[in-house]
Amino acid sequence: MTKRYVHLNCDMGEGYGIWKLGPDEELMPLIKSANIACGFHGSDPMTMVKTVRLAKKHGVPVGAHPSFPDREGFGRRRMIMTQEEIKASVLYQVGALCAILQSEDIPLNHIKPHGALYIESARDEEYCDAVMAACATFKVPVYGIKGSFHEKYCKKYGIKFIPEAYPDVNFADDGSILSLTIHGGRPTDQVKDALRQILYEDTVDAKSGKKIQFDFANEPEITVCLHSDLPDAVLKAQQINELLAEVNA
Amino acid sequence: MTKRYVHLNCDMGEGYGIWKLGPDEELMPLIKSANIACGFHGSDPMTMVKTVRLAKKHGVPVGAHPSFPDREGFGRRRMIMTQEEIKASVLYQVGALCAILQSEDIPLNHIKPHGALYIESARDEEYCDAVMAACATFKVPVYGIKGSFHEKYCKKYGIKFIPEAYPDVNFADDGSILSLTIHGGRPTDQVKDALRQILYEDTVDAKSGKKIQFDFANEPEITVCLHSDLPDAVLKAQQINELLAEVNA
Amino acid sequence: MTKRYVHLNCDMGEGYGIWKLGPDEELMPLIKSANIACGFHGSDPMTMVKTVRLAKKHGVPVGAHPSFPDREGFGRRRMIMTQEEIKASVLYQVGALCAILQSEDIPLNHIKPHGALYIESARDEEYCDAVMAACATFKVPVYGIKGSFHEKYCKKYGIKFIPEAYPDVNFADDGSILSLTIHGGRPTDQVKDALRQILYEDTVDAKSGKKIQFDFANEPEITVCLHSDLPDAVLKAQQINELLAEVNA
Amino acid sequence: MTKRYVHLNCDMGEGYGIWKLGPDEELMPLIKSANIACGFHGSDPMTMVKTVRLAKKHGVPVGAHPSFPDREGFGRRRMIMTQEEIKASVLYQVGALCAILQSEDIPLNHIKPHGALYIESARDEEYCDAVMAACATFKVPVYGIKGSFHEKYCKKYGIKFIPEAYPDVNFADDGSILSLTIHGGRPTDQVKDALRQILYEDTVDAKSGKKIQFDFANEPEITVCLHSDLPDAVLKAQQINELLAEVNA
Repeated sequence: MTKRYVHLNCDMGEGYGIWKLGPDEELMPLIKSANIACGFHGSDPMTMVKTVRLAKKHGVPVGAHPSFPDREGFGRRRMIMTQEEIKASVLYQVGALCAILQSEDIPLNHIKPHGALYIESARDEEYCDAVMAACATFKVPVYGIKGSFHEKYCKKYGIKFIPEAYPDVNFADDGSILSLTIHGGRPTDQVKDALRQILYEDTVDAKSGKKIQFDFANEPEITVCLHSDLPDAVLKAQQINELLAEVNA
Repeated sequence: MTKRYVHLNCDMGEGYGIWKLGPDEELMPLIKSANIACGFHGSDPMTMVKTVRLAKKHGVPVGAHPSFPDREGFGRRRMIMTQEEIKASVLYQVGALCAILQSEDIPLNHIKPHGALYIESARDEEYCDAVMAACATFKVPVYGIKGSFHEKYCKKYGIKFIPEAYPDVNFADDGSILSLTIHGGRPTDQVKDALRQILYEDTVDAKSGKKIQFDFANEPEITVCLHSDLPDAVLKAQQINELLAEVNA
Repeated sequence: MTKRYVHLNCDMGEGYGIWKLGPDEELMPLIKSANIACGFHGSDPMTMVKTVRLAKKHGVPVGAHPSFPDREGFGRRRMIMTQEEIKASVLYQVGALCAILQSEDIPLNHIKPHGALYIESARDEEYCDAVMAACATFKVPVYGIKGSFHEKYCKKYGIKFIPEAYPDVNFADDGSILSLTIHGGRPTDQVKDALRQILYEDTVDAKSGKKIQFDFANEPEITVCLHSDLPDAVLKAQQINELLAEVNA
Repeated sequence: MTKRYVHLNCDMGEGYGIWKLGPDEELMPLIKSANIACGFHGSDPMTMVKTVRLAKKHGVPVGAHPSFPDREGFGRRRMIMTQEEIKASVLYQVGALCAILQSEDIPLNHIKPHGALYIESARDEEYCDAVMAACATFKVPVYGIKGSFHEKYCKKYGIKFIPEAYPDVNFADDGSILSLTIHGGRPTDQVKDALRQILYEDTVDAKSGKKIQFDFANEPEITVCLHSDLPDAVLKAQQINELLAEVNA
């Protein structure tokens, strides 16, 4: 197996106005990059500034986490938009974060689409083309699903693609991620083992028990996605970091 | 009187979704810079892209037109916000436009705050400090009110300040602009003469008839603001341009 | 053919904040019922009050025009919502209008879903059940598409169903309405004739020329829908009213 | 001292979309009336339905909790609105809740304005007139500040006024409530005693220690406001209820 660098990322700054979501303060010191919400599914300009400063304080690189424009649905519903609209929407959100980063003297590190925009752009070629056309403007890597349109369109636009592993979710037999809303996450005490299996055996067990084959073996860099709004996110991050200390040793 | 460069600017792209506002297509060829709404009082990502392309087509430099976050009030109501919130809000909006400009290979030309954010930052020192702290990030000129906090805080932050002249509005006796909502604009057939008086005599007649003294005489550059949502905007632009052809000759 | 009462309805109050849409003032005296937007695709509380007063002034009965919660897409995009969410959303909007009507001492006359909510509830049984479950609360007739789920679920909930005729749109060969965004409306000079054909021959010509059969012959009451945002809406209303004067004579 | 009925109310349903606020499930069984947010500062149609059902399950009467239209500021910022706009806005929100109540076969019990709309309508006569003009439409009691414009305008519009007591906040020397954002709430272990003092001595101690005189002595009915988003809300509710058991005995 190739020597790899595997690092933990987490969505951050997904509160809105008075409302909080996820233990950002406790998680930030435990992660290697933060995907910061840009105001379309969660967050607002002030929350973005605070979250960027929290990342800066802990030396955590900041990526943009753009979404469909759907605050009420937290960006988790497919929306019908033209390619032009999707591209404009991603440019708008990432640009907004870039200005806040610039004001704090931090570079943009990467982009990771959120929720339904992530899922739909992985499986719908037109949506993916629009998302990546916008991302190309910023000349940073994109986190996405290995083997999906994410990878293909990153190549088309000359974007560095970094594949994601998902140890804290449940999988259907076809390898797709089961809805968190309906199925919840993987039990806390199985997350570390699931990641070990993903990284060392290149497989994961679907909810049914069926073994799913991945294709991570030759990837020099993998990023591990942790959902901060699932239970025990801090504990899971600690356990994942124990494993990653071995992996990256 | 010093030799000056006087040029016409106009707010553009202030529609929203299906709704239109102002004759952008006809006005764009007649102006020297466009203040493009950034989505907080009018516009949305797609409207911004379309408006940027319209400006590009006519070779018109593009500025950002950030606002209080108040779509329902079209950014014309003072809002209670902390300095941090105002700064974050301006960064967000201008950054969003910058990314769209970058994707179209156009630089940001200037910033002009919109509506109540413009008025309040001219007269409230804390608001102005917050706005200009955000503007400083972008290293472009700011359009503002001569002699107001706009000028003072541009100086503080090392921002080039370009004063605005307003020939299409009515003035109170103290030199402040009378609300367009309540008083409407200056009659179309008086706009050109009002601008002539501003530029050649450094005065304007208040609605009451009282003569108001300006201090434009030593300004090397003045920008003239035309309101695209007032009646006869295209005609007024043509008349202003006749006058500016003389002035800049 | 049965003696029928055929009357003209029109969507009204679809502006938002500063933005206007459609010639409401000129159309209101020409219609027999107004479908007033409830703030989710267009309108806001103040616009609703003004539009209700305009209807009251002209003695025009007022219906509610609820939508998917999608202002940026003007309610014209299918949205993914649960039945509970759709029902809650329709209750919210119609209730909001009812309070404004109550304050003006006018009863609610009918309900007509807007845009994508209208189209989707006509062809998606689950969406329709949710919409009509909400409508049943208000005990007024619903305007909908003859032969669609609209009719079936009105029956289920004991709601009076009034079928709509559409003389100002284009039809596909299968009888469905062609997208206004893509195909525009029927040419102004064909609208009156199209309605005559609908009412007297129970057919309409599709855009391709194919004859489409309706089933209006035994309906005692038909309501004719005019789109106020298409060109020449006032002229079309006048021409339609000439025809309806004959029909209802 | 007159025999009085004193009962506990609490703001409920102030989450929004995915975001939660306050321990609604635990508090609902402990209160005598629920002020349910109507979507302008918190909540959305689905959250309103769920909260109404929770109240119904525990037999808790439901009031409307309308706000300035300011989700990002949680309705805690004064907004500049005309009287017509305020009235329309309150009608809209209360009407929306009424329809949801009607669909669940529950009557509207009362109205209590939220946040800045509550504070501003207590001290600004024009705002209060507009709020109460809207409230009068619904023919239910209004909760408000004793001795403020709330009381005066309830009288003007023939609305039953029920004064509120606030044991969980801090007071300025002039008897006004100190901002929760800046000063936080009263320490948990002082809340029950503060309420005892309010009810038995008709005074409260300001933060400075100064004694503030109330005028509750002759009120036959008082409602006690508990803030569900302050710490220990459930514990405070239990302690308050112990006291109210004595008071109402």
